[in-house]
Amino acid sequence: MKRTDLALEARELWQEKGPSELPPGVTGETREASGCTVETLRVRSRAGAEALGKPEGTYLTLFPEKFLRREEGAFEAAAVLLGQLLRSLLDLPEGACVLVAGLGNEAITPDSLGPRTMRHVLATRHLVSALPETFGAFRKVTVLETGVLGNTGMESAELIKAVAEKLKPDAVIAVDALASRRLGRICRTVQLTDTGITPGSGGGNTRSELSRAALGVPVVGLGVPTVVDAATLAADLMETAGLGEIRAEDFGEYGEGMMVTPREIDGQISLIARLLGYGINLALHDLSVADVTALVG
Amino acid sequence: MKRTDLALEARELWQEKGPSELPPGVTGETREASGCTVETLRVRSRAGAEALGKPEGTYLTLFPEKFLRREEGAFEAAAVLLGQLLRSLLDLPEGACVLVAGLGNEAITPDSLGPRTMRHVLATRHLVSALPETFGAFRKVTVLETGVLGNTGMESAELIKAVAEKLKPDAVIAVDALASRRLGRICRTVQLTDTGITPGSGGGNTRSELSRAALGVPVVGLGVPTVVDAATLAADLMETAGLGEIRAEDFGEYGEGMMVTPREIDGQISLIARLLGYGINLALHDLSVADVTALVG
Amino acid sequence: MKRTDLALEARELWQEKGPSELPPGVTGETREASGCTVETLRVRSRAGAEALGKPEGTYLTLFPEKFLRREEGAFEAAAVLLGQLLRSLLDLPEGACVLVAGLGNEAITPDSLGPRTMRHVLATRHLVSALPETFGAFRKVTVLETGVLGNTGMESAELIKAVAEKLKPDAVIAVDALASRRLGRICRTVQLTDTGITPGSGGGNTRSELSRAALGVPVVGLGVPTVVDAATLAADLMETAGLGEIRAEDFGEYGEGMMVTPREIDGQISLIARLLGYGINLALHDLSVADVTALVG
Amino acid sequence: MKRTDLALEARELWQEKGPSELPPGVTGETREASGCTVETLRVRSRAGAEALGKPEGTYLTLFPEKFLRREEGAFEAAAVLLGQLLRSLLDLPEGACVLVAGLGNEAITPDSLGPRTMRHVLATRHLVSALPETFGAFRKVTVLETGVLGNTGMESAELIKAVAEKLKPDAVIAVDALASRRLGRICRTVQLTDTGITPGSGGGNTRSELSRAALGVPVVGLGVPTVVDAATLAADLMETAGLGEIRAEDFGEYGEGMMVTPREIDGQISLIARLLGYGINLALHDLSVADVTALVG
Repeated sequence: MKRTDLALEARELWQEKGPSELPPGVTGETREASGCTVETLRVRSRAGAEALGKPEGTYLTLFPEKFLRREEGAFEAAAVLLGQLLRSLLDLPEGACVLVAGLGNEAITPDSLGPRTMRHVLATRHLVSALPETFGAFRKVTVLETGVLGNTGMESAELIKAVAEKLKPDAVIAVDALASRRLGRICRTVQLTDTGITPGSGGGNTRSELSRAALGVPVVGLGVPTVVDAATLAADLMETAGLGEIRAEDFGEYGEGMMVTPREIDGQISLIARLLGYGINLALHDLSVADVTALVG
Repeated sequence: MKRTDLALEARELWQEKGPSELPPGVTGETREASGCTVETLRVRSRAGAEALGKPEGTYLTLFPEKFLRREEGAFEAAAVLLGQLLRSLLDLPEGACVLVAGLGNEAITPDSLGPRTMRHVLATRHLVSALPETFGAFRKVTVLETGVLGNTGMESAELIKAVAEKLKPDAVIAVDALASRRLGRICRTVQLTDTGITPGSGGGNTRSELSRAALGVPVVGLGVPTVVDAATLAADLMETAGLGEIRAEDFGEYGEGMMVTPREIDGQISLIARLLGYGINLALHDLSVADVTALVG
Repeated sequence: MKRTDLALEARELWQEKGPSELPPGVTGETREASGCTVETLRVRSRAGAEALGKPEGTYLTLFPEKFLRREEGAFEAAAVLLGQLLRSLLDLPEGACVLVAGLGNEAITPDSLGPRTMRHVLATRHLVSALPETFGAFRKVTVLETGVLGNTGMESAELIKAVAEKLKPDAVIAVDALASRRLGRICRTVQLTDTGITPGSGGGNTRSELSRAALGVPVVGLGVPTVVDAATLAADLMETAGLGEIRAEDFGEYGEGMMVTPREIDGQISLIARLLGYGINLALHDLSVADVTALVG
Repeated sequence: MKRTDLALEARELWQEKGPSELPPGVTGETREASGCTVETLRVRSRAGAEALGKPEGTYLTLFPEKFLRREEGAFEAAAVLLGQLLRSLLDLPEGACVLVAGLGNEAITPDSLGPRTMRHVLATRHLVSALPETFGAFRKVTVLETGVLGNTGMESAELIKAVAEKLKPDAVIAVDALASRRLGRICRTVQLTDTGITPGSGGGNTRSELSRAALGVPVVGLGVPTVVDAATLAADLMETAGLGEIRAEDFGEYGEGMMVTPREIDGQISLIARLLGYGINLALHDLSVADVTALVG
């Protein structure tokens, strides 16, 4: 089994083996909107979850084609669509309190998506309290960068839980870099899911879970594939070269702790972190893209 | 009244006005050690606290003269001394759990002392749990960068409280940049106090308090003056120029939100953040300076 | 005499003393355009230059009021206007080769304007050569960050001269942070001048000159006030407080090497560096703001 | 042929195919010193150069084993040894002028070795001129970060040549990240060679050459492998897995522009950049490691 965080790839792996398009208990559809393609996958039963290796819930995959080709107006269109998709998963009441958390290590470029996205998210909780006449229409947003276990001594999930117990938010949005099995997907899709996130799961480094079950409120996971692990890459390459199927585990320790990224990953993550940040702001407040630009800078 | 976070300067201001060396209920002493001068000030009564404008408790001010002159071996000596002073304020049991928090804004150089110090502090909590045979002799340290209200929507104190309620540490160490009234003190002294920290107090931006009363466990505040506010500077300059005493408040809005720092503040903060980080590690674990270098890198 | 790099302040200082609006040999005018105010000062004679303490040439000061209030569309309008002003000073032939240099120290926030602006300037020289069919309509732009003497051992002007001798550009644009005598001007105006730049002149640290005389081609200096030196601030404050005129030099060494900046300088420089970068791209190529966004990201 | 910048790997590739230890015209030896292993390879004839695919000259490969295990005192010992090796290749007269250049892109972690090393190199040229009584015993060092073609529009070699024509140094030291064919070598060896550097050669992106022939003075290339390109990795993995020899080129465009690095590359590069910087300072001046620490900070 190749390491992946993407529902889309779990579906592909099923299709590569299976006779059917989708496992029983799983439904899917694809549509075009705002210069993007959106694939929806719904895992509706335990059997479906087992077949796909993904928990029950909804998975939305956004392919922002025009944005990736840097077409004019495409950033704005993709950000608005992302905001709508996110809003559809959150279903928040007015005046809601939301905790937005960025996971990952800012010093490791492909792992920096979470913290870098946070730079574009408006923290409004203190403003709504202090200036209700000006900010009364805003939702109360708290922004948290969790850091990583090696630097903090504390799991990301543990820190988020501690803050959630204090703030009692109506929902949590967790942003993290994901692992993919295909180089061609890096920084090219956005995954949204109401099943939350298992930090580090894609990289084989399972930590505790961020989910509705764990936190007691809806948790939306928002992620982008930024990395392929080296053994997965090699297995993928061999298949592509027609050398038969090899399992990533067969390589043993070789390549462990190694990751494959595009040379221009830094710039790609900057662009997509901005897209995610805008999408989050647009989902949480009644703002236009121009408003967000004026507020976030 | 000039804005200052330094007990040393509160003492100076008293002496400038008062007939006596120290207010009643306050005792002080100065000694030399390890190429440094250490001034101890003990505020022992409510009257003393009011006279000095500082809460009851112990204030240690370290002047690391040799380190500032970059003499050979002076970094090591100052770090060891800082570790001892910190240890004397903490009085921790073996196996203690400690939360170390860095306050301030990494993007504003003179406010970046807290987060930059955290880079040098060993997070050990997860290691002690996972590898007790190797790390059993270490204290359990969690490292937290609090960010700032404007970016997070959450007071530093609130975040620290949330984490402390979850982790139940035996003590908290909070590191923050301080305001001074004298340019000549910037990055030249280290203040340690068992009275904790009121984030932003020196800059006139009072937020909620980090203290034993607030957190239920001992809180040591560790800080370095990195900034003089513009009105305080001007008042100080006028006095120096013999133009009589002027109060910083008299300048009204002029200079508000302005800060004065040395041109080379970035390099100075790098050096002193490393000193604080080493001091913290040496206070919390039975390590040599060379051990810390090997572990922190 | 107070330290300033701004022609506008040289003009003010004249007016504070003198009976006339402007010295003989100096003409000026002010106009509104694109949500900005533009002040033009022309120093047309040696006498005028001496009276003003500024070399003969044209000085344009842009006050981007709407941009500073973050009004919608104001960034685009100000960038286009800046591009036009810059183009008027450069008067470049088609196919011209331009060297754009960012001066200053990236590690010192208020001195980082030059290098940060460079991040937004398109380097096209290699593209025009390699892909003439695609980039033939572009001017050939080389982008250089000069670093600072203390880190490189080489004056900025010396490095620029070395590169100019090799590349033989048709013009040089040099971007640098400037010193002002008023806190209220920091990051609020843009100065353009065909007299070039004397790096570090505002801060009292005169190095060699970047001018048409020195380089043999037109040199446009582009700068923004980011800093007030501490003694200048104090002199300014005293005047404001009605304590009579004091000269910055009277403070002697006190405050030397100190600078005064707004607390939020980091964010302000990010915004204005982007404005300068866009202005430069729009001056040098026939592009729209949206084109620049697509190319620079 | 696999992409590699390492003479050591060129030697390995020869040995994998050839019957002899080394090609004719190439001599080699290995020795232990200061907790390190040093492999010397001398390419003494044109035939040797062709057989090995490396220009005639001396190649020293340093394996700083104890430093990599972070043993106490190992940094100091390795830095001193590196200084001696560098000195042996440079053979500089007293009072010599040296240009030290860091190549690569600071924003791409594995390509940031050059610029990061420069932070640790003392620029002394301006000090020797300004304060000959204090700095008279120092060599005159200029430090240059070249940036990369995509950002500057100018080849690194072209910029270095422009500066060298101006400064007329007695020697050039060029620091760059190298490509390796083995994951296990990343950040684990230092290569020094008097044949200079062809920037980007390892990554398949050949630019113009930095050599004695091109610059007219001795050019020492100093580099560390920081990256394996994805196709080379896959070819290497297949061999390891016993699937026969495959050429990296066979993968075509798959993996192009992709690079493989360890997850903790950022920290590894920090450590080794400091080692290189210290080695350069120790080679160029008569200083102790403690002196360098005091001067560089």
